Amino acid sequence: MALSKKPVNGMKDIMPDEMKIRDYLIDLIKKTYREFGFTPMETPVVEHLANLTSKQGGDNEKLIFKILKRGEKLKIEEAKTDNDLSDSGLRYDLTVPLVRYYSNHMNDLPKPFKALQIGPVFRADRPQRGRFRQFYQCDIDILGEPSNIAEIELILATTKLLSRVGFDGFTVIINDRRLLKGMAAFCGFPEESYDQVFVELDKMDKIGMDGVKEGLTELGFEPAAIEKLGWLFAELAQKEDQVGWLKETLSGCMDDNAADSLAFIMKNVGELSTGFRLKFDPTLVRGMSYYTGTIFEIQIDGLNASCGGGGRYDKMVGKFTNIETPAVGFSIGFERIITILMEQGFKVPGEEGATAFLLEKNMPAERMTEIMKEAQALREDGKRVLVSVMNKNKKFQKEQLAKEGYTEFKEFFVR
Amino acid sequence: MALSKKPVNGMKDIMPDEMKIRDYLIDLIKKTYREFGFTPMETPVVEHLANLTSKQGGDNEKLIFKILKRGEKLKIEEAKTDNDLSDSGLRYDLTVPLVRYYSNHMNDLPKPFKALQIGPVFRADRPQRGRFRQFYQCDIDILGEPSNIAEIELILATTKLLSRVGFDGFTVIINDRRLLKGMAAFCGFPEESYDQVFVELDKMDKIGMDGVKEGLTELGFEPAAIEKLGWLFAELAQKEDQVGWLKETLSGCMDDNAADSLAFIMKNVGELSTGFRLKFDPTLVRGMSYYTGTIFEIQIDGLNASCGGGGRYDKMVGKFTNIETPAVGFSIGFERIITILMEQGFKVPGEEGATAFLLEKNMPAERMTEIMKEAQALREDGKRVLVSVMNKNKKFQKEQLAKEGYTEFKEFFVR
Repeated sequence: MALSKKPVNGMKDIMPDEMKIRDYLIDLIKKTYREFGFTPMETPVVEHLANLTSKQGGDNEKLIFKILKRGEKLKIEEAKTDNDLSDSGLRYDLTVPLVRYYSNHMNDLPKPFKALQIGPVFRADRPQRGRFRQFYQCDIDILGEPSNIAEIELILATTKLLSRVGFDGFTVIINDRRLLKGMAAFCGFPEESYDQVFVELDKMDKIGMDGVKEGLTELGFEPAAIEKLGWLFAELAQKEDQVGWLKETLSGCMDDNAADSLAFIMKNVGELSTGFRLKFDPTLVRGMSYYTGTIFEIQIDGLNASCGGGGRYDKMVGKFTNIETPAVGFSIGFERIITILMEQGFKVPGEEGATAFLLEKNMPAERMTEIMKEAQALREDGKRVLVSVMNKNKKFQKEQLAKEGYTEFKEFFVR
Repeated sequence: MALSKKPVNGMKDIMPDEMKIRDYLIDLIKKTYREFGFTPMETPVVEHLANLTSKQGGDNEKLIFKILKRGEKLKIEEAKTDNDLSDSGLRYDLTVPLVRYYSNHMNDLPKPFKALQIGPVFRADRPQRGRFRQFYQCDIDILGEPSNIAEIELILATTKLLSRVGFDGFTVIINDRRLLKGMAAFCGFPEESYDQVFVELDKMDKIGMDGVKEGLTELGFEPAAIEKLGWLFAELAQKEDQVGWLKETLSGCMDDNAADSLAFIMKNVGELSTGFRLKFDPTLVRGMSYYTGTIFEIQIDGLNASCGGGGRYDKMVGKFTNIETPAVGFSIGFERIITILMEQGFKVPGEEGATAFLLEKNMPAERMTEIMKEAQALREDGKRVLVSVMNKNKKFQKEQLAKEGYTEFKEFFVR
């Protein structure tokens, strides 16, 4: 087989310029989240296929890279489908592995456990501009904390990080899955179709209420339920205290606690905000069906897309352990932030001011030792020093090195 | 399928204690290698199977985790072997992906290119204590530098790093593949069997010259060649300037440049050593057959195993590009260093002195805001602050938190 120079289809080599920004961002993430008491941890890139296909991952479960069984376990002749050939695969997110990890090590971990995980995930998506089949996720999660301290801490930590990255205009959008369900129940949609209703509702900001109504009608829902939804949103739009009004209106269709917890989080985060905006949005849905309570999303001004999100998923740990464990997580859009920084021409602090030693060819050993000692002394002071042979085209070499941050040059000739 | 709490067979969850040490070591690596002008870069975890099985990887090629083809490309009924079902796999080292990367981006990279790559690699080895199927490698490589500056820089950077990690007694062992070939030619072994001879020679430190002779005899080599090898090593042992003597003795069987380059590197590194020892060892072989020149290895005092190694592989880039490009690399034993630090009970600096706020349950919103503001102010000063609900068993909670580095506690009650 011929050797291939390109990466495998849909994956990406990371060039030095981008890598510097990635390293810088990862450092900033670790520093910031550490201040909030999050603890770094790591799971293998490879996960049991049974865990990956347990209906936690939504459409991502269709995008799994599966790993071929090995040795005697691989029975090609008897295989009917790809699941006969594989029992593990590459993780498509960090949440499923985190929950497996927590379930496995629960007794050795602090309670609550505040986890920070950064690493590559894999999805066999159709390759397209700016989206790759291997990409990094960066998640913080709090497991074993039932109170809303968890949501408040996650929002404060994430917004602090984004401020430090240099974003100053952004909005935290918040909602609660229980409130969504309360609205659907109040309008009279059948419980088994809630997820379908939410998918339509999620389009509100793009297609407006008329579009949502049309979509629901096409799906064959009762006109009465659709009308009531329209009424609910029309009324809601005129209210000052929307969460309070919903608590009252949906009473009987929803646990009071849902609205109270939302109000509690919003009051606290509102007071503690360091410049960002906080907005309740009853049409925020978030794709993953595993969410059970609060959900949130971050939008950066001027960008027509989310730059992170998360929510409460109190039922997932129980699927592994049979012990219900509260859990909330927030994932920032790591790759999106990198893209934005690259487009802004972001310069990593401290990259400038390095020294390049350029040596004429065939430097004798004694002289070389002297030169290397000089480099050693500079490095001892923490300076960045490159020692390299002088190219024929010295001018071009220096120009190239200048791009890498080498601003001082010292030339050495064979005496 | 039932959910599994354990990681997939042979892989490992990384617990917070170990993760802190890993993060610390990675920071130290990046800082140190940066001072030497190495540039971080990254390749995807998934690589073309054609590249992985191009006879660069020796036995590792038998240990590849292969990824199942997808969609129309997967033809289970027609498949005879696993290679019909897969065209990509998980990388087993960082060298093959680096060379592909360099070949792909040569025109956009500085010359010479000093690469730093840290990341997970995968080998389906038989699971055993302390060895896992996913583990980290950490490589520095210099591509496009023909002179011995490359070897010297690699050795200085690696030893500087190991000193900073806290190892003070270690030895850099050095040899040259060309010298090994020269010895084999001088003794009269047939050229096609050199690798077999080297495998036996490599056992010298364990089984002695008599054992090596026995092994070679069993393999059916000429007694005259075996005797000459014995003579060569007996003579060599008595020489002061071993490399110089070999240059003279093997003259005609070996390029003079091999001994000269070894002497040049040894003189320089010897003078520049910051405490470590440097030793020429004519029985050092290093497993990978892609090495073409200098090879080296690091041994830590008191450990009966290598803690890193590398060498020159001037032919590999040419297989991708048809343009010969000099290349040298050094890989430290990342996982081994972590194991040693864990066993030593290494404490990451700066982990102590954090504050934990413990809050009575059901804190009202106003009071919560006050508390969070206090935490915010401390964090603003760079302090690590955990805000958590007070557990029923407060004493146990504090003991647990103390293990995590929380030494100050502040309790808050509902007034």
